[in-house]
Amino acid sequence: MPPVYAQKGAPSRIGWQLPPFYCPFNENLIHPKAAELEERAIAWIDALGIYPDATERAWGLATHSADFTSRIIPYGDVETMLLFTQWNYWAFATDDGQASGSASTADLVDHSARLIRAVEAPGSGLLPPGPHAAALEDLAARTRATLTPFQLRRFTEGIRDWLFGESWQTSNAERGVMPQLNEFAAMRMSVNGTRFTLTWCDAANGIDVPADVLYSAPVQALTDAAGFIVSCDNDVFSYNKDDDLEPWEPNLINVLAQQNGCTPGEALPTATALRDRVVTLFVRLRELLARDADEQLARYLRSLEHWIAGDIEYHNRAPRYASPRNCNELPVQGASYDITWRDAPSDASVEPLPIPAIAWWWQQLDA
Amino acid sequence: MPPVYAQKGAPSRIGWQLPPFYCPFNENLIHPKAAELEERAIAWIDALGIYPDATERAWGLATHSADFTSRIIPYGDVETMLLFTQWNYWAFATDDGQASGSASTADLVDHSARLIRAVEAPGSGLLPPGPHAAALEDLAARTRATLTPFQLRRFTEGIRDWLFGESWQTSNAERGVMPQLNEFAAMRMSVNGTRFTLTWCDAANGIDVPADVLYSAPVQALTDAAGFIVSCDNDVFSYNKDDDLEPWEPNLINVLAQQNGCTPGEALPTATALRDRVVTLFVRLRELLARDADEQLARYLRSLEHWIAGDIEYHNRAPRYASPRNCNELPVQGASYDITWRDAPSDASVEPLPIPAIAWWWQQLDA
Repeated sequence: MPPVYAQKGAPSRIGWQLPPFYCPFNENLIHPKAAELEERAIAWIDALGIYPDATERAWGLATHSADFTSRIIPYGDVETMLLFTQWNYWAFATDDGQASGSASTADLVDHSARLIRAVEAPGSGLLPPGPHAAALEDLAARTRATLTPFQLRRFTEGIRDWLFGESWQTSNAERGVMPQLNEFAAMRMSVNGTRFTLTWCDAANGIDVPADVLYSAPVQALTDAAGFIVSCDNDVFSYNKDDDLEPWEPNLINVLAQQNGCTPGEALPTATALRDRVVTLFVRLRELLARDADEQLARYLRSLEHWIAGDIEYHNRAPRYASPRNCNELPVQGASYDITWRDAPSDASVEPLPIPAIAWWWQQLDA
Repeated sequence: MPPVYAQKGAPSRIGWQLPPFYCPFNENLIHPKAAELEERAIAWIDALGIYPDATERAWGLATHSADFTSRIIPYGDVETMLLFTQWNYWAFATDDGQASGSASTADLVDHSARLIRAVEAPGSGLLPPGPHAAALEDLAARTRATLTPFQLRRFTEGIRDWLFGESWQTSNAERGVMPQLNEFAAMRMSVNGTRFTLTWCDAANGIDVPADVLYSAPVQALTDAAGFIVSCDNDVFSYNKDDDLEPWEPNLINVLAQQNGCTPGEALPTATALRDRVVTLFVRLRELLARDADEQLARYLRSLEHWIAGDIEYHNRAPRYASPRNCNELPVQGASYDITWRDAPSDASVEPLPIPAIAWWWQQLDA
């Protein structure tokens, strides 16, 4: 089926044809059980009734969370992937249910505390009863039974880091602040839930990197860089979906537009150049780490590539992004951004980006 | 020197004679290098100029942070303890510098993000320049050089958990909410910075419990229980120090007073009974875990006891608590609460407390 441009004709600050993507390690992989995964996840969704009506359900399914999991973990264990997929559907439903920008930081922090403890403290009963809380209890109980203690801790810390990022974003909106580029770069990986996602990638892939290796500076720099690339790509794919929001979304494009005093359309090539330079760093640092890597670390490095590449392929096809809700009554099946690719970065420089908060990533090349 | 009751005559809702403390494993230990530790920490404080004037310096030193470290880590490595001690002086200065209750949750979350990234992202430059930021950079750099990667990650997650707890507390104040007992019990260990402190105890003691043991449910339940006991004790020792604040501090006594519709003085025995029942749980679960513990876990279990016991001995003597600022111009050297002890819990029940968020601690006895 040819791609459907549901969004055609809708006004856009950056246009609907995105700049070509640089991703030298993309193989367009997908898990062979992708269809089964989606079917089982939807059965769970419907059994627990996490959407209030058919329209919300349609937009929930349009997140294509099963496709996301299947593309970023192309060789993973299906049962673990199913649980991760359900978490993602649940998180989208929760996130979209909190009308963006309307909750205060104080309210969000209180809700976050209740949510995190639901996972950390079984039976804590801190959330108002309802389908969302029931689904969370179900997810949390199965997660505790599935993950190893170390994975479970990484998962809960990942949730905390994610919600901490969300709270920071909300605090900016509440205070009427669009972050500077350095602040944005420092925090973007948290807002994107990097640590939440990667715990599940490790669990589903059966990767077990020892803590002192996983948390070493070079491996963390590479991990953060991967999270930043994924976040930048998310910002580009989400731009048109969020361009009706006030205040403007604090995404990479709007941050650059503010900083450079230009339009979002003019900022887009700058965003791409910046993102491509992080990809170059990622490729170089990954190669360096691969030289002395044992099997577990080698598999972890590979899984970061799968995450970055799979995330692009996923976003390209998900109706949530390709036929966004602000210009479509219902998601359009088969909608796609129909992106193109490039073989070289749009900015060939290998120099560190002039962003203090992430300069330490490049320093790992010399470590 | 006999104890000095600097606070005598000052009005108090709960009185100045605290109920006897139940702590069956207290040996009143203190590190032999306690004096050296304090001297070196103060030299660092003065070199970096973290207090704006002599009065603030006096109250800063009255936190007795060196004594705290020396009592909760009686056999630790001095260099690591020095760094932890400096962190504590710094944290008290930062905490007390933010006039309690006046900052919004949004402001606190923003500041927290900058602070955490100062440790996680070297050179991120997100904090406004000044003596506090310079001291933080110094601490962060030395911490990265001192801790193992896994310890460093636990430390940064510990900071995040602590600030997350503080944000939750601030969000309650902002919304005019005094938490219910279940909410309070669920979150109190985070507000107290349990994970921040324990990472340093492990590092200074040279304890290295594998991640899958440390994060197992029974060991985490015991850890949380220890954090809760320490927090309860902190609430009792801090009560008079904070009793001029509006809205009322969300400490155990005020939470119980609200819940039971009684005065703080009437709530105090209930608070003690509740706390003592958690001590009983701690003793039982600790004994159970000790049976099959290897050397590292056994040392960890012991360090939790040192923390609880040392924390009481510390609070008893620190002018910050025993001659509090709301009724003293300057801290009084030698001030003490002159506490007494009891050999049995004030509530002998071994049943789980009827608090859903912590009921899982008792379940570990049957696991």
